[in-house]
Amino acid sequence: MDMLSENLRKIFDETGAEALFIESGFLRRYLTGFSSTDGYVVVTPRECTLVADLRYYESAAKQLRGSRVRVVQGGCREALMLIKPYHTIGVPYQHVSVAALRLYEREGHETVDCMPAIARAMLIKTPEELANIARACEIAEDAFLSLLPELKEGMTESETAALLEYKMRSLGASGVSFDTICAFGENGSVPHYETGTRKLRFGDPILLDFGCKFNGYCSDITRTFLFGDDGKHEEFKLLHAKVLMAHELVKERVAAGMTGREADAIARNYLHSKGLKDCFTHSLGHGVGLQIHEPPYLSPRSDEALEDGMVFSDEPGVYLCGKLGIRIEDTVTIREGRVVSFMTKTDRSCLIL
Amino acid sequence: MDMLSENLRKIFDETGAEALFIESGFLRRYLTGFSSTDGYVVVTPRECTLVADLRYYESAAKQLRGSRVRVVQGGCREALMLIKPYHTIGVPYQHVSVAALRLYEREGHETVDCMPAIARAMLIKTPEELANIARACEIAEDAFLSLLPELKEGMTESETAALLEYKMRSLGASGVSFDTICAFGENGSVPHYETGTRKLRFGDPILLDFGCKFNGYCSDITRTFLFGDDGKHEEFKLLHAKVLMAHELVKERVAAGMTGREADAIARNYLHSKGLKDCFTHSLGHGVGLQIHEPPYLSPRSDEALEDGMVFSDEPGVYLCGKLGIRIEDTVTIREGRVVSFMTKTDRSCLIL
Repeated sequence: MDMLSENLRKIFDETGAEALFIESGFLRRYLTGFSSTDGYVVVTPRECTLVADLRYYESAAKQLRGSRVRVVQGGCREALMLIKPYHTIGVPYQHVSVAALRLYEREGHETVDCMPAIARAMLIKTPEELANIARACEIAEDAFLSLLPELKEGMTESETAALLEYKMRSLGASGVSFDTICAFGENGSVPHYETGTRKLRFGDPILLDFGCKFNGYCSDITRTFLFGDDGKHEEFKLLHAKVLMAHELVKERVAAGMTGREADAIARNYLHSKGLKDCFTHSLGHGVGLQIHEPPYLSPRSDEALEDGMVFSDEPGVYLCGKLGIRIEDTVTIREGRVVSFMTKTDRSCLIL
Repeated sequence: MDMLSENLRKIFDETGAEALFIESGFLRRYLTGFSSTDGYVVVTPRECTLVADLRYYESAAKQLRGSRVRVVQGGCREALMLIKPYHTIGVPYQHVSVAALRLYEREGHETVDCMPAIARAMLIKTPEELANIARACEIAEDAFLSLLPELKEGMTESETAALLEYKMRSLGASGVSFDTICAFGENGSVPHYETGTRKLRFGDPILLDFGCKFNGYCSDITRTFLFGDDGKHEEFKLLHAKVLMAHELVKERVAAGMTGREADAIARNYLHSKGLKDCFTHSLGHGVGLQIHEPPYLSPRSDEALEDGMVFSDEPGVYLCGKLGIRIEDTVTIREGRVVSFMTKTDRSCLIL
């Protein structure tokens, strides 16, 4: 039996290196299935080894028993010993520091970039990865639903974000997948708003963009809704309906084989036809996995073809500077050629609390 | 007037580069005072420029008005334009990816490591930095005090950590400075325990190692105490008193001019004299600032001299494998030659709830 899994063998062969040397946390998690804040993965033609220190050795050995990953105790020195016989080592250029590179070079190694091969493999999620993402999405939705009845006038954006994050944590998330964006009123018009001290008032639009991690995997969701209706939100409601239509059209029409650009164009062309072309100021979506932003990218510049097993966000938005902003986002996957959303519990329509 | 601050001029001159090019978030924060998730800092002999994109440009320009940092709008391309006239650029090797290095090289630049010069400057905190750390410490202590009456039998470690983190967030922290360690009972014997699902029982020791961020600056604190006294904790209480004595001796005896090794030896020799040499399995402390772990290091291998304005942890611990673990930690600074703790509100003695 090949001591490397089929997936890892493919990655290894693609890099053309004699061995792979991985320090980066999310890549260690991807290649071994074991999460830790420190450690090294060394892949040689014959085997995949996780080098774990005192803190992690026991639990790693236990979790990986029966897998094709060998666990040894040690640190950087022990990991470097394993690649000593090999000249050309593959390291992920995007996730290796120059300081680490200089160390490998001093040890006599030449390096090649193994990130393209790993990134290609990470694009297609396994059933286990999809299950982790589904759970991360479910926790985010449950937390949102339990937050709604607790929203009160006078709460700040930061308090609201903290409460939502607490709920996700209590429901089993290991943490947030990114800093929660909570924007009240006109603050929603900044696409990457930094949650602040604005207090919630009756009639405010609320934009919540948030997500959590489960077993290392991320979720990403945005909902925009009204905290009471003060009768001054005709424009908001009209625009909300248009963003929702763009969001739903993407789900309906995106199919395997389509490029990221074509998917983006579905939402962009629709909003264009409604006179909102210049108000959709970002791209339609990004891949979601062990990282909150990863390939595939759904943007006007993306030639990547979408395929079964990919996971990405569908998040059109419309922003009127200093006035209002609406974004509606689900994390979705492609199954049997069509889009399937992970979000099954929360309303996307213009909720009025 | 020199357009570079005195501190930045010193760093710049020490690196020997013609310009500095900084992408890393905490270094951007350090060099400009402005926090953002993206951006570039370019330092030339004449000026320091923050290149901020659409999301941050306005607030950066507002916050930095009147400072010696110029703000321009743009991304990577605009930042690279600013260093075009310069051949040798300083980049922080520990915090630059190989992918970024390759880009600079393709642009015709040679690089030198500017991290040693920046790290030396970051060692000594300004009064403003000390105030931020003090506030981060105060929030952590207040959250801890408000957590104590809410601890209940049956709560899991994860729930407890989530509640503590929520309290820090509600009190004004922007987030945690590291994943909270909450260990019940025998789990305390793992120095870097991963918070799990163990439920709290009457008589359990509780070890909480946590901290938060305020204005980018970190706090770090550990308390070990008993959730009720079931009468079986004589050994725990004896050991707790010894760890506390080691912790306090460090505060009493560490003085400016002492090396990290000498400071570490104060706690280590004391625990050695009590027959606990092999039970103190880590080093005494680490620097705390914009990063949760940074210089100075207080360990048997550290020749660094401690000085006024440095901030570090004082965290001796004793671990009996699979049985119990006790760690007592304050974040402290050196002022007028002596140790001053930032922790002023919480008890270090063997609290029994």
